[in-house]
Amino acid sequence: MARIICTGLGPGDPELMSVRSYRLIQSARQIAFFRKKGRPGVARQIVNGLLPENVIEHAMEYPVTTEIAFDSPEYVAQLAAFYDDWAARLAALEGEVIVLCEGDPFFYGSFMHLHTRLKGRTEVEIVPGISGMSGCWTATGEPITWGDDVLTVLMGTLPEDELTRHIKTADALVIMKTGRNLAKIRRAFAAADRLDDAWLVERGTMDGQKKVRLAEAKHAECPYFSIVLLHGKGRRPEVRE
Amino acid sequence: MARIICTGLGPGDPELMSVRSYRLIQSARQIAFFRKKGRPGVARQIVNGLLPENVIEHAMEYPVTTEIAFDSPEYVAQLAAFYDDWAARLAALEGEVIVLCEGDPFFYGSFMHLHTRLKGRTEVEIVPGISGMSGCWTATGEPITWGDDVLTVLMGTLPEDELTRHIKTADALVIMKTGRNLAKIRRAFAAADRLDDAWLVERGTMDGQKKVRLAEAKHAECPYFSIVLLHGKGRRPEVRE
Ligand SMILES: C[S@@+](CC[C@H](N)C(=O)[O-])C[C@H]1O[C@@H](n2cnc3c(N)ncnc32)[C@H](O)[C@@H]1O
Ligand SMILES: C[S@@+](CC[C@H](N)C(=O)[O-])C[C@H]1O[C@@H](n2cnc3c(N)ncnc32)[C@H](O)[C@@H]1O
Repeated sequence: MARIICTGLGPGDPELMSVRSYRLIQSARQIAFFRKKGRPGVARQIVNGLLPENVIEHAMEYPVTTEIAFDSPEYVAQLAAFYDDWAARLAALEGEVIVLCEGDPFFYGSFMHLHTRLKGRTEVEIVPGISGMSGCWTATGEPITWGDDVLTVLMGTLPEDELTRHIKTADALVIMKTGRNLAKIRRAFAAADRLDDAWLVERGTMDGQKKVRLAEAKHAECPYFSIVLLHGKGRRPEVRE
Repeated sequence: MARIICTGLGPGDPELMSVRSYRLIQSARQIAFFRKKGRPGVARQIVNGLLPENVIEHAMEYPVTTEIAFDSPEYVAQLAAFYDDWAARLAALEGEVIVLCEGDPFFYGSFMHLHTRLKGRTEVEIVPGISGMSGCWTATGEPITWGDDVLTVLMGTLPEDELTRHIKTADALVIMKTGRNLAKIRRAFAAADRLDDAWLVERGTMDGQKKVRLAEAKHAECPYFSIVLLHGKGRRPEVRE
């Protein structure tokens, strides 16, 4: 029976992987990673050059991504069958299997869908990683939160009015799953009268990293690996016990 | 003039430091770190055994911590003078200085107060780290966020009614700066009728890590390095572009 270790790779720069992750990958006998069909896969690319020769690779290819609506019953059913299948396949492998995950696995990571299916069936360990948002706010050159700031993390897939409501009242804000939702997110910031304070970071810490003011991000679409940020201003001084 | 690199050390387990951080520390000529007077300092302890011989150490000792109220003018003035002083001293050093920071520097880190003072005066680089909260939710064995969950991060120093208001509506929730605020935080969860779902993680990934249900955390105080968590349940399926 397999022993599964899902390891966070951090935001993209291989140097930002944890020491533990780095060691696991360098001595891996088997790895597994998600990817879109016909693409190399972002997680797989991060570990390029680190893998030992003869490592066995399991590419877990999503059956659908954006071809059908993600809230349709068909999408949900296809994804569930896909996770069921891979949970069974991974559990049946022998020895240690290193599952690669972008960022931090337990923070909106796809591995969580395998995790719920593997629990109790086989040994599973999670190694945390630097989240994509940490890589992105570091790239802006300014702290995201100070003092008593409240940080809100939203998905760009939420309805526009819900985004606007959060943007209006937030101290510090992060919006992930930006991609195709960029135009909607811009409208939500404009409606909340905070468009001028927001930043868009594309591919944080990866090759081709880009940082622009959201107001100047004229493209209607942006890469899947993009995050919108609003920096907190700090409500009170720090206390240290 | 000094070149300052502030590096995130992650939640506490030295293996969870980034490869870049690890390399910077192993070849450091000078380090600096914050600590409470008379204590070894958590950041300094994380790098025990990694530092080269003859490294020069600058311990930046807080003039006050909890002796006076953190929202009093006196506290604010003393802290400001302390940061002014250390910004000047670090900038005047020669060569590279590695500033150690627990977790992720730009996420509620004390270094940010030096960062604002050093900007434009000397070269400053930030290396992100795994946040304390990532270490803590990984320790609970359950993902913190799924699908379209909104994550809210609060400081335990906020007023009780504000905590309650956020707890009532949150999907997933993290409360940092728990310490002396634990009794207040428990009351806020009880008032929001969500006490039974909350977890307390003390010293996540460090020696002496402890995980208990908040309802069973009977002690009125807990360590400074403690986080309260409420896991999200997932609002919608994942979408991948
Ligand atoms: C399914 S979530 C996975 C998050 C991941 N587990 C983490 O901890 O960052 C994917 C979203 O993360 C964000 N993301 C992750 N890494 C990023 C990076 N390096 N630059 C920009 N966005 C990133 C994007 O918003 C993307 O849509
Ligand atoms: C001033 S903030 C610094 C946060 C840090 N920059 C980070 O990214 O985690 C200090 C608070 O972080 C939390 N914290 C940081 N690391 C922790 C750990 N390993 N276990 C529990 N709490 C931690 C505690 O709530 C503590 O009061």
